[in-house]
Amino acid sequence: MDYSALSLAAHERWGGKLSTVPKMAIDSKDALSIAYTPGVAAPCLAIAGDYDKSFTLTQRRNTIAVVTDGTAVLGLGDIGPEAAMPVMEGKCALFKAFGGVDAVPLCLRTKDVDAIVETVALLAGSFGGINLEDISAPRCFEIERRLQERLDIPVFHDDQHGTAVVVLAALTNALKVLERDISDVRAVISGSGAAGTAIALLLKSRGLTNITMVSSRGIIHRDEPWLNPATRELAEWTNPAGLHGGLDTAVKGANLFIGVSAPGILSADMVRSMSGEPVIFAMANPTPEIMPDVALSAGAAIVGTGRSDFPNQINNVLAFPGIFKGALSVRAKRITEAMKLAAADAIADLAGDKPSRDKLLPEAFDPRLGDAVARAVALAAL
Amino acid sequence: MDYSALSLAAHERWGGKLSTVPKMAIDSKDALSIAYTPGVAAPCLAIAGDYDKSFTLTQRRNTIAVVTDGTAVLGLGDIGPEAAMPVMEGKCALFKAFGGVDAVPLCLRTKDVDAIVETVALLAGSFGGINLEDISAPRCFEIERRLQERLDIPVFHDDQHGTAVVVLAALTNALKVLERDISDVRAVISGSGAAGTAIALLLKSRGLTNITMVSSRGIIHRDEPWLNPATRELAEWTNPAGLHGGLDTAVKGANLFIGVSAPGILSADMVRSMSGEPVIFAMANPTPEIMPDVALSAGAAIVGTGRSDFPNQINNVLAFPGIFKGALSVRAKRITEAMKLAAADAIADLAGDKPSRDKLLPEAFDPRLGDAVARAVALAAL
Repeated sequence: MDYSALSLAAHERWGGKLSTVPKMAIDSKDALSIAYTPGVAAPCLAIAGDYDKSFTLTQRRNTIAVVTDGTAVLGLGDIGPEAAMPVMEGKCALFKAFGGVDAVPLCLRTKDVDAIVETVALLAGSFGGINLEDISAPRCFEIERRLQERLDIPVFHDDQHGTAVVVLAALTNALKVLERDISDVRAVISGSGAAGTAIALLLKSRGLTNITMVSSRGIIHRDEPWLNPATRELAEWTNPAGLHGGLDTAVKGANLFIGVSAPGILSADMVRSMSGEPVIFAMANPTPEIMPDVALSAGAAIVGTGRSDFPNQINNVLAFPGIFKGALSVRAKRITEAMKLAAADAIADLAGDKPSRDKLLPEAFDPRLGDAVARAVALAAL
Repeated sequence: MDYSALSLAAHERWGGKLSTVPKMAIDSKDALSIAYTPGVAAPCLAIAGDYDKSFTLTQRRNTIAVVTDGTAVLGLGDIGPEAAMPVMEGKCALFKAFGGVDAVPLCLRTKDVDAIVETVALLAGSFGGINLEDISAPRCFEIERRLQERLDIPVFHDDQHGTAVVVLAALTNALKVLERDISDVRAVISGSGAAGTAIALLLKSRGLTNITMVSSRGIIHRDEPWLNPATRELAEWTNPAGLHGGLDTAVKGANLFIGVSAPGILSADMVRSMSGEPVIFAMANPTPEIMPDVALSAGAAIVGTGRSDFPNQINNVLAFPGIFKGALSVRAKRITEAMKLAAADAIADLAGDKPSRDKLLPEAFDPRLGDAVARAVALAAL
């Protein structure tokens, strides 16, 4: 189907994908006097006297901001804040459809880290959480860190952590299918941007420490002169074999490939050089690092991609709605590693008692999903 | 009715008065592919290639931000951004209920003029208009002016202009009832803050130039040492008689009193000192400058207040939803004087062929109102 033409026509028809709707009818003087003046003075004064009440009497209870600067939108790159809006509106629609979370898209006309942090911090009293979206690495790391230090609400960069949670869920079930222990995994992550870094850190939290990261410059090794502060941190604990070189060197003998990088860069020969029954998660969008049929012919045991037209779609829509729903439900101040691990397990569990090679993950439309993830995240937060 | 207790309970039940709802069902892979990836890349690229398309393909078409710093909320004063939120949510609910305009409340954690201007400017690519709300004078004037200079979307401080539009509508019909010409009006405006200043300017645009302004310090006269830059500008063209003194001096012989000031400051004796058949708009909230029965006994011909439990409620909900609806419908870059005058006339016209002393204005719930104002504003914009 030509989704481009259909989508453009639909967006022209919609003129914005979200509607901001009052929860109450305002159809009488009494209704107006309760929702607005003079009655509204009472909740205002209650909050003025007790800041915590802003989390129960206002939209902070269930509303987050989806914030971008438009620098790393889908595979389109730096297209600017106005052009990023259709994606942010879509993201907000998914928050509501799959998690019941009210989400407001905010696209900022700046790429300056200080300005982004300052702007979001000034807005934070209006929201119960901040979902950062499509902000390019390495700026996204600093923005998230500084905002989380400053704010008393969760700050979550979904391109990092949402992706990492769903990769971990998929891996958990792949290991079940293959009856392999996570401590036996030798992983290669292709891509050291936002997603790759977060995946590495979350896998490490789960006990997978044999990870080699490959950037567009090559294998990340602490002696490489081209490391930046973010990849230097990764170099401290990844690449246990001390490899130098490219992707072909990295994957030799590995049994897990995770790609969040570029189309077609994993060849059939590279898959053949991997060990055992290799697991391939090739998530470059829309064209994966290797096409599933090619990978399977070359000996891959399990293949996942980011696409909905192949089996095993690794899609962070499985994670983010429930994660925020759970965090908001207990007024968590941040999304901790424990909460992400719990979310991954909840997603993995929903694939059924017997996940299979072609069905590692639940469907995005599984009606149990948002609540199951939310429950797990809320429990982990407490 | 005890609106305070009812309102507090309702706010606890609602936990935020707005819901952000997708306009489409997201219940299949096709639906997801059109509203989100991969199809959404098409509208993104269309906007990246043509900025103007952000006004047709995204929420900018029909969505405004309602922005405050929480410094002048209702009669409560400077209660801060979190405590201001119930009012802003209510305002957004009214925008939707009465104008079909989607509105997002944003309460800023700063009172610094530069920071407010910068924050709103960075967000402006996400919205089709900015409604400033409950920002204290004289800061509100500079914030509005600087933002409007910088942005290509309307910036409208409702406490100023919405109030002014409805006062002008009420005055228009009061003059019809009394068969008096606007050039014969000698007006006193009590209150030289945001609303008073805007009322003076809009009445002047309509040809009413005999205006004397009274602040809490006394009559505004160009020789007074306590003028600030905003009141100094007013002093240049108001107070034609060159009066010094207080409200009692100002109202003597005047035939219109407009109060946006403080409870009970207009006495029966002062009304008796006015000339002809005086018109009294006493809009201090919740207690007017003079109670209607007192004013009428003292000889007032027509009395209006800000309250819904007396006749002639002068309420800017009659104006702002239609004004933004009209401005958005033609993508106006600002709200001009002509658009405000047109809005006032449209409101006045809806009171019926024969407005009466007790019914100067249409009901807020008049279903024709939002569209009538929007049409007039759109025509005036073109």
